[in-house]
Amino acid sequence: MQYINNPQEIEERSFEIITEELGDHVFPETIAPMVKRIIHTTADFEYADLLEILNGGYESGMEALKQGKKIYADTRMIQVAVNKKALADHGIEIVNYVHDDDVAKEAKERGVTRSTVSMEKALKDDSVGIFAIGNAPTALYTLIEKVKIGAAKPALIIGAPIGFVGAAESKQALDQIDSPIIRINGRKGGSPVVAAILNAMLYQLGREW
Amino acid sequence: MQYINNPQEIEERSFEIITEELGDHVFPETIAPMVKRIIHTTADFEYADLLEILNGGYESGMEALKQGKKIYADTRMIQVAVNKKALADHGIEIVNYVHDDDVAKEAKERGVTRSTVSMEKALKDDSVGIFAIGNAPTALYTLIEKVKIGAAKPALIIGAPIGFVGAAESKQALDQIDSPIIRINGRKGGSPVVAAILNAMLYQLGREW
Repeated sequence: MQYINNPQEIEERSFEIITEELGDHVFPETIAPMVKRIIHTTADFEYADLLEILNGGYESGMEALKQGKKIYADTRMIQVAVNKKALADHGIEIVNYVHDDDVAKEAKERGVTRSTVSMEKALKDDSVGIFAIGNAPTALYTLIEKVKIGAAKPALIIGAPIGFVGAAESKQALDQIDSPIIRINGRKGGSPVVAAILNAMLYQLGREW
Repeated sequence: MQYINNPQEIEERSFEIITEELGDHVFPETIAPMVKRIIHTTADFEYADLLEILNGGYESGMEALKQGKKIYADTRMIQVAVNKKALADHGIEIVNYVHDDDVAKEAKERGVTRSTVSMEKALKDDSVGIFAIGNAPTALYTLIEKVKIGAAKPALIIGAPIGFVGAAESKQALDQIDSPIIRINGRKGGSPVVAAILNAMLYQLGREW
């Protein structure tokens, strides 16, 4: 069987196909690589219509990455899918507390999701600049509530919970705050999409330096 | 803001919505939960048309899980996304060698993907029963070639590489062998989909015992 077996060649050819099939689009030069990387990750061109950037989300997020701010991710899948070398090159750490024993215990006692308690723990850490949510609407709601009362000022919120209950609504609720935002509208999103957004920004950062 | 904040309630309500929107379907009682779990993971109903099971893939895979056979996964995302408690309950381990130093070294020397070398390493281990491929067409091609020459006899191949170069073709190439197969046709698939397939089987196993 004949097939391409060189990783770099596979990725380059993939992006050529995506660029060709995406055709004409309205994305600025800085955002087009992000759109293409999301499509590369999902094989789903609908994401070109679902991605939305509000309140200077891209620029503010890039600035936070340049400053080496931590990224809070609401799933371990995001943690393992973001390029480790790119993170290390820029001294950036991705944190997540969903599997911590104290978080599990408190969530059970209060009858709320571990995502909520984990988010509250992250909000106490000033070195976290980017909040990347790919799974839990409850995490996003908790974050929005804290921003509304002035208890949090994220450099960037990536709002991309996926699912059928509360996901679309939680992302719509981001309209209530004026934080820098990158979001995926509707039901779609998820950890691989969040990781694609972060990887696109990290690779762009590499090129800017 | 009012929203459902109970994890079990969220999942139950999600499956009700999916069942309702999926409507009439042809899937047998054992497979319907798998289809719904894939849709739950992706928010994409197209997967109901892309999932295909060949040569008794479901039954053979369930038997391997009951026997506590290892699962080889081609990404760390699959490893972290499969339910840890369900694995532990049945004494099942998920292995992956893509990030091993010896694998990286050999891949570089031979100019092939780490996925190929990692797959070759897994094929030397007789306790691996299920091969779950969510990313690399090259891993799937390597597996198919070994099966064709009689050097591998998997209890189940989950063929779900995602992407634009070789992914669809690699899954089509599964037609050349008569192993038990669960596959996602076309470009779509990926680690979360593979994890959803494995989780659906593990939860079903829990119910059978």
